[in-house]
Amino acid sequence: MDSRNGPEAPQESNVKSFFNSAPPLRDGDLICNKLKEFMDRISLSSENGSPVRVVCVTSGGTTVPLEQRCVRYIDNFSSGHRGAASTEYFVKAGYAVIFVYRRGSCQPYCRYLPQDSFLEFFDLTEDSTIQVCQSHATMVKKAIRDYRKAVEEGLLLKIPFTTIFEYLQILQMVAKSMSWTATRGMFYLAAAVSDFYVPWESMAEHKIQSAAGPLDMRLTQVPKMLSVLRKEWAPSAFCISFKLETDPGILLQKADMAMRKYGMHVVVANELATYKEEVIIVTKGRRTAVRRHNKETDLEEQLVYLLDEMHYEYIKQGGA
Amino acid sequence: MDSRNGPEAPQESNVKSFFNSAPPLRDGDLICNKLKEFMDRISLSSENGSPVRVVCVTSGGTTVPLEQRCVRYIDNFSSGHRGAASTEYFVKAGYAVIFVYRRGSCQPYCRYLPQDSFLEFFDLTEDSTIQVCQSHATMVKKAIRDYRKAVEEGLLLKIPFTTIFEYLQILQMVAKSMSWTATRGMFYLAAAVSDFYVPWESMAEHKIQSAAGPLDMRLTQVPKMLSVLRKEWAPSAFCISFKLETDPGILLQKADMAMRKYGMHVVVANELATYKEEVIIVTKGRRTAVRRHNKETDLEEQLVYLLDEMHYEYIKQGGA
Repeated sequence: MDSRNGPEAPQESNVKSFFNSAPPLRDGDLICNKLKEFMDRISLSSENGSPVRVVCVTSGGTTVPLEQRCVRYIDNFSSGHRGAASTEYFVKAGYAVIFVYRRGSCQPYCRYLPQDSFLEFFDLTEDSTIQVCQSHATMVKKAIRDYRKAVEEGLLLKIPFTTIFEYLQILQMVAKSMSWTATRGMFYLAAAVSDFYVPWESMAEHKIQSAAGPLDMRLTQVPKMLSVLRKEWAPSAFCISFKLETDPGILLQKADMAMRKYGMHVVVANELATYKEEVIIVTKGRRTAVRRHNKETDLEEQLVYLLDEMHYEYIKQGGA
Repeated sequence: MDSRNGPEAPQESNVKSFFNSAPPLRDGDLICNKLKEFMDRISLSSENGSPVRVVCVTSGGTTVPLEQRCVRYIDNFSSGHRGAASTEYFVKAGYAVIFVYRRGSCQPYCRYLPQDSFLEFFDLTEDSTIQVCQSHATMVKKAIRDYRKAVEEGLLLKIPFTTIFEYLQILQMVAKSMSWTATRGMFYLAAAVSDFYVPWESMAEHKIQSAAGPLDMRLTQVPKMLSVLRKEWAPSAFCISFKLETDPGILLQKADMAMRKYGMHVVVANELATYKEEVIIVTKGRRTAVRRHNKETDLEEQLVYLLDEMHYEYIKQGGA
């Protein structure tokens, strides 16, 4: 396939062997049912008179197990803050959101609450009732109110993953369940996905022993599923991927390449050192820098605002 | 050194090159000051008329960065539940506890509180005050009460780590700060420590690129610091290490070997599949199985009870 005309064909044999090698998804049926219920409900609601738009936000890093009975794994660093923050703004903009997140990563509406020591939050009064410390009360109230609202309106579905195997299987299920949304569907792929993995069948069954000197490992490339998503799983949806690099010298070039190679509609380019302050929205022939106004605002508010507009345009044009 | 007479000499050059290759500990001075304050306070208090015993509990898994500006790392699975639960029982038994834990891992006194979705916990009443849901109130009250008590009595100091470099530097600092406790000191090394690492200077500075086919990695063995701890950092302390294996066929043999090789006083052997239900306490010439009574109790309660007794005996005998 000519890469100038669209996403490059992924090497089908690699994709097949990845999925064949993946251990079956635990709770696969449960996830499937939850998705069905969510979509059934969403399909009956509307957003200012138009059918609701649906976005799948992926968030946090995937792991690659190094042993079948997993003790050790390779992890990709990602707090999940971007995905969690963006989810809040997508809900605010009227989207129904499927939040596919790494277990333990940052959650929408409680990004600002401490994780390790949340006992610090509470006081016991003299008559033994529980109170939230005065200093956190406003923040906690807002968080609870917004979260409850999103849940009650049925606009938020959360699905957790840990490994790259789980992530890609879930992404495929979500994409299939969203097919009815056609151009009103969006994929906002903020998860940090492993590039390399150890195929299940070539993985050590037991814990690797350390007595035998240095450890040599050969990792296989994870097939580029962005192409598969665009070509097969969700050909009409509006697709946004993220490119994170530590070396600013190659960032935009890599973002352009991702656009071309995987047929993304938008690539959001960010540098590890400044990703909370600035991103560059790369589209066909255009680059738009988005900077955070100040420490009290979220970069994600502007980012989601711009993507929301682009998506409207995309729907109006029939997905061109 | 003859291994029959005590812990095997670690290869000094490996230990040196590990510490030389480690990036300097951020907040090293802060940790040092906290330890000093804690020890100063503890040294003035007593436990039933005797000087207080001090235990360093390590908990959770260490990571091994694969890149200097870290995006990818190898992680060791550990929820940190054992260390967190044991910390509660050590405090209850009268110990002062230094809880050295992996960031984000399980914390004492909030083991039973949900992590991902703790917003579920709260209700907003009609007049907009915050309440903890009735169903969780008893548990949360107990957690807050016990936690506050431990903090007020000054019996709990928490120090977080992420990488293997941080972990071993912190362990060394803690050991030095505990030297005055002599035989009244205990190390309860429940953390899942990486066996392999990539020396800092041979690490990729930037994110490893995925375009160039499979990835070959050579990992170096982490020097066995248990020997160094026993021989140099804390020669009088009572030392307990943990052995986790997935293959029951080699577990006890590996535990015996760890006892002999690193001069541990106790090795707690556990199997991944059953570690919440059963452990075997291995001491010189003796194996004692400890099983959880039922789902409402913690295995750690019995485990800490037995170790507490052994430690008393050890102190009485002058550390023999």
